[in-house]
Amino acid sequence: MPVPSAQPPAPSPLSAHLSAGFTAPEFVGVRELFDSFLVEDPHYSAQLAVYRDGDKVLDLSGGPLLTRGDLTGTYSCSKGVAAFVIALLVQDGSLDLDRTVSSYWPGFGAHGKDRLTVREALSHQAGLPGLAGGFALAEFTTPEAADRLAAAAPLWRPGAAFGYHTLTIGILMEELCRRTTGTTLQQHYDERIRRPYGVDFFLGLPEDEEPRYRAVLHDADPAGPWLDPMSMDGIRSNAPVSTIMELPNHRAVRAAGMSSAGGVGSAEGLARLYAAGTTGVDGAAAFLNPATIGLMAAEQVSGLDRCSGAAKAFAVVFMKPHPGQAFGSHLAFGHDGANAALGFADPGYGLGFGYVPRRSEEGGTGGRAQRLSAAVRRAAQSGVR
Amino acid sequence: MPVPSAQPPAPSPLSAHLSAGFTAPEFVGVRELFDSFLVEDPHYSAQLAVYRDGDKVLDLSGGPLLTRGDLTGTYSCSKGVAAFVIALLVQDGSLDLDRTVSSYWPGFGAHGKDRLTVREALSHQAGLPGLAGGFALAEFTTPEAADRLAAAAPLWRPGAAFGYHTLTIGILMEELCRRTTGTTLQQHYDERIRRPYGVDFFLGLPEDEEPRYRAVLHDADPAGPWLDPMSMDGIRSNAPVSTIMELPNHRAVRAAGMSSAGGVGSAEGLARLYAAGTTGVDGAAAFLNPATIGLMAAEQVSGLDRCSGAAKAFAVVFMKPHPGQAFGSHLAFGHDGANAALGFADPGYGLGFGYVPRRSEEGGTGGRAQRLSAAVRRAAQSGVR
Amino acid sequence: MPVPSAQPPAPSPLSAHLSAGFTAPEFVGVRELFDSFLVEDPHYSAQLAVYRDGDKVLDLSGGPLLTRGDLTGTYSCSKGVAAFVIALLVQDGSLDLDRTVSSYWPGFGAHGKDRLTVREALSHQAGLPGLAGGFALAEFTTPEAADRLAAAAPLWRPGAAFGYHTLTIGILMEELCRRTTGTTLQQHYDERIRRPYGVDFFLGLPEDEEPRYRAVLHDADPAGPWLDPMSMDGIRSNAPVSTIMELPNHRAVRAAGMSSAGGVGSAEGLARLYAAGTTGVDGAAAFLNPATIGLMAAEQVSGLDRCSGAAKAFAVVFMKPHPGQAFGSHLAFGHDGANAALGFADPGYGLGFGYVPRRSEEGGTGGRAQRLSAAVRRAAQSGVR
Repeated sequence: MPVPSAQPPAPSPLSAHLSAGFTAPEFVGVRELFDSFLVEDPHYSAQLAVYRDGDKVLDLSGGPLLTRGDLTGTYSCSKGVAAFVIALLVQDGSLDLDRTVSSYWPGFGAHGKDRLTVREALSHQAGLPGLAGGFALAEFTTPEAADRLAAAAPLWRPGAAFGYHTLTIGILMEELCRRTTGTTLQQHYDERIRRPYGVDFFLGLPEDEEPRYRAVLHDADPAGPWLDPMSMDGIRSNAPVSTIMELPNHRAVRAAGMSSAGGVGSAEGLARLYAAGTTGVDGAAAFLNPATIGLMAAEQVSGLDRCSGAAKAFAVVFMKPHPGQAFGSHLAFGHDGANAALGFADPGYGLGFGYVPRRSEEGGTGGRAQRLSAAVRRAAQSGVR
Repeated sequence: MPVPSAQPPAPSPLSAHLSAGFTAPEFVGVRELFDSFLVEDPHYSAQLAVYRDGDKVLDLSGGPLLTRGDLTGTYSCSKGVAAFVIALLVQDGSLDLDRTVSSYWPGFGAHGKDRLTVREALSHQAGLPGLAGGFALAEFTTPEAADRLAAAAPLWRPGAAFGYHTLTIGILMEELCRRTTGTTLQQHYDERIRRPYGVDFFLGLPEDEEPRYRAVLHDADPAGPWLDPMSMDGIRSNAPVSTIMELPNHRAVRAAGMSSAGGVGSAEGLARLYAAGTTGVDGAAAFLNPATIGLMAAEQVSGLDRCSGAAKAFAVVFMKPHPGQAFGSHLAFGHDGANAALGFADPGYGLGFGYVPRRSEEGGTGGRAQRLSAAVRRAAQSGVR
Repeated sequence: MPVPSAQPPAPSPLSAHLSAGFTAPEFVGVRELFDSFLVEDPHYSAQLAVYRDGDKVLDLSGGPLLTRGDLTGTYSCSKGVAAFVIALLVQDGSLDLDRTVSSYWPGFGAHGKDRLTVREALSHQAGLPGLAGGFALAEFTTPEAADRLAAAAPLWRPGAAFGYHTLTIGILMEELCRRTTGTTLQQHYDERIRRPYGVDFFLGLPEDEEPRYRAVLHDADPAGPWLDPMSMDGIRSNAPVSTIMELPNHRAVRAAGMSSAGGVGSAEGLARLYAAGTTGVDGAAAFLNPATIGLMAAEQVSGLDRCSGAAKAFAVVFMKPHPGQAFGSHLAFGHDGANAALGFADPGYGLGFGYVPRRSEEGGTGGRAQRLSAAVRRAAQSGVR
């Protein structure tokens, strides 16, 4: 006789499947799509926020596990956030994308890396996707980690290929910031971006914001094939924790706010950041001028990523849309995270976009973030500037 | 009780499934393959023509919807036709593939495009796969369209990637022709190729040929995902009509005969053109010499197309065979169309080939055009020169 | 009434499914995986051998059709073997990877190949994946074959792409050896590697070793689509026998021992060679120094192979691991064969590895050789140096 199954959950009231928050009238269709995700899966919980031409047009949360005001991990969305600091250094004239890394950081020139430009290093061409043995958790944001990277032999001829520098691109950004300004990237971010523009995204979460943090939910790693930690793909994935998905759930990672994957925030924070940088928010001017945006958003590499084997496209740090990851117009730039969170600016539509799920999802074209992005752009299209 | 279905169509007489036309004895197997397509699908209607060493060896039509003497749309097959005019300009010395576009067309140098060579521009490397907003139907073949393109910022660093310039490569060819000779590409084509060699393919269909035109049949666009008109893939697909498939069904397009997609012809016309250019026809010498063929047919780029994400290979304008589109020997060059029409020359076998279906088909390896091409080459192989 | 099927084969005794040979205790798990292959398929027969830090740790054979002491064909594993001779020439200073091929071999410069470097030529960038018409069986290892190749026009602009030079890379290696030393590659191999290090792998199988040869078993070629012998993919596959799979089963091929595909050996021979070159064996020093290993193992090209359309990565002659062929750490280099035999060194783990099946298998990630390699590295990981 079959074991009787548990009673199915009682049907939720309809209102349980509706998002809460603000929706400008022309974006009602986006909210309907978001609500459809809530209906499909009663556990689904996420935040979605969009600015258009500097004004907030969507600020939604839905599902039982995440509300407005919550913060969670965003993994590599952090790279896009940190890249705004790099953009400011470029705009200031402190950092020249066409100079060599070793002109700012002499030790970096070891093992034939002396001719690598900042532009190449920050578009995953350095041949340093990781170091065999990885980095300790406490080491990531330190000059010592940078020294180890500087001393390493590249895994390919620098500039001859690109492969996602999962954790090391953060070390490169941070050391370039220290070398050119004497100040940490995290401090720049706090003083020049987060505080003045009221951005609810942290590279280094203060102790007093901790109560707002909600741990990322993710399935235990499926028993996939063994990944050689000394393979190209294994080296880039080296994380000093049981699984890279656990990174932001460690207080030490949240506190250090490493540029590669340690950022913590809300969807509203991501959307506001991308808007503040490109359109301005609340009547203030954008903190990046069009020339800087042009430099940072110009595609540098595209094709098969040497580490993952997948098709990718990158500008300086930022991801660019491409057929397999069609998150925006050709002018868009942003970054997703391992949990399929997504932040981007799309100057083609005047958009700042943020999406953060509580439970890790599948990303790429067809994922929820990209479907929401398409709906947002479609709605915005009627009034393209 | 099930609803009784409609009576199946009465079986056609056997002769309804046979093609009409000429077949040289050694190509009987090709005709059998073509006939098998007719048997499989009673609506299937197409033309197939092949020249070998300047002599016609196949000239077939079959199916209820297309007969010999009919003309229909061929979309990007037009690019290959127009490329023969470019080849004549190269052979004349009027156009040098290694000079910059801006040396002929000074306005083109804007936004860092001043170092782009003609060779790069004509192999989809200009970074101008389209313009946001597209072009008006009446604008395509005009100097004004060329001016707009010249003034545009490239979507990638010119020469750093290639991506199919769906409609704009025609504008580039036409303006280079005007700038170097003062005459339109269409006029060159008529005077130097179509009339002297009796080619039944038109870049600009005269009014008195209109009765021969049969509209391309195609399914209404399936309700696929929304394509952002400002995405890389959307920009290259910008067409000023409801769907790009409707282009040649507009009299204005057929009349203008735009080089990218406005050509109208028969399979016999395509085969005869490729033969006239490379082997000569009817005892006349080929109008291109081997050196010019070598320059035009040499592969320039291969790999993942930046706009579509698909694997592609291009010579100067012409498509080259590759594992996903294996239409000929390594010496072959040609172009297919959005309806899976195909025209090419294969100097390895002395072939000129044309295939034109009435209803739009799927292309690529495994498609009918490529299966027919394989059968033709296999038959030709016994007597390879 | 269904036709009664034949009786299933009587269950084999358990011992029929166990491999014979030596297993060091820490590699017992690898043997268990190998034995599981034997259980799955009672016809499966193969050899597996591994050296670690110069000591043999696995030397197994299993199945009814191949035992220790047998030799069989290994196809392109031969390229990796021959590459060790190239490495010695580089180490000697006889051959400089950065000089042009034509500086050693003046006739090679024809048709714009004069600027191609040895490094490019030996990483499949020469544009000479084959010659239309192929080579005769007796011709492969002769200077006449080299002359034909030298006189040929490249199929792409040399250095602009890479595509697997299935049979011609052997001709290039052999002629460079003759030009720089006056001696054949096979003679170098015998005198400097095979005899002094006792390597059971032959480039040129002596008559008195013939009784040890077991013909490679392979399915008759399935009736796949016709491959145009003048297509890029057909040209690289041109073999003067009914199918490339029959090559080593011809005594003439085994006798000549052509560097591209004529090598014959055991798994133990492959493993011992890779160990002798990189870690040394039996207490002798490695015959390559770390600088030479670095030069030969550095990745030169990666991406879509122009001939096959598949993702590939190559160092100088040697294959490099990549996501689709993840046979080792980022330091590994080796070569597989058309029958899915595999030989490689992995300096990351101090390994020399050889795998040889009697019946041709499917290769690539997921194939038996790569599963065995992963098991070996996983076992070795506990004691990474």
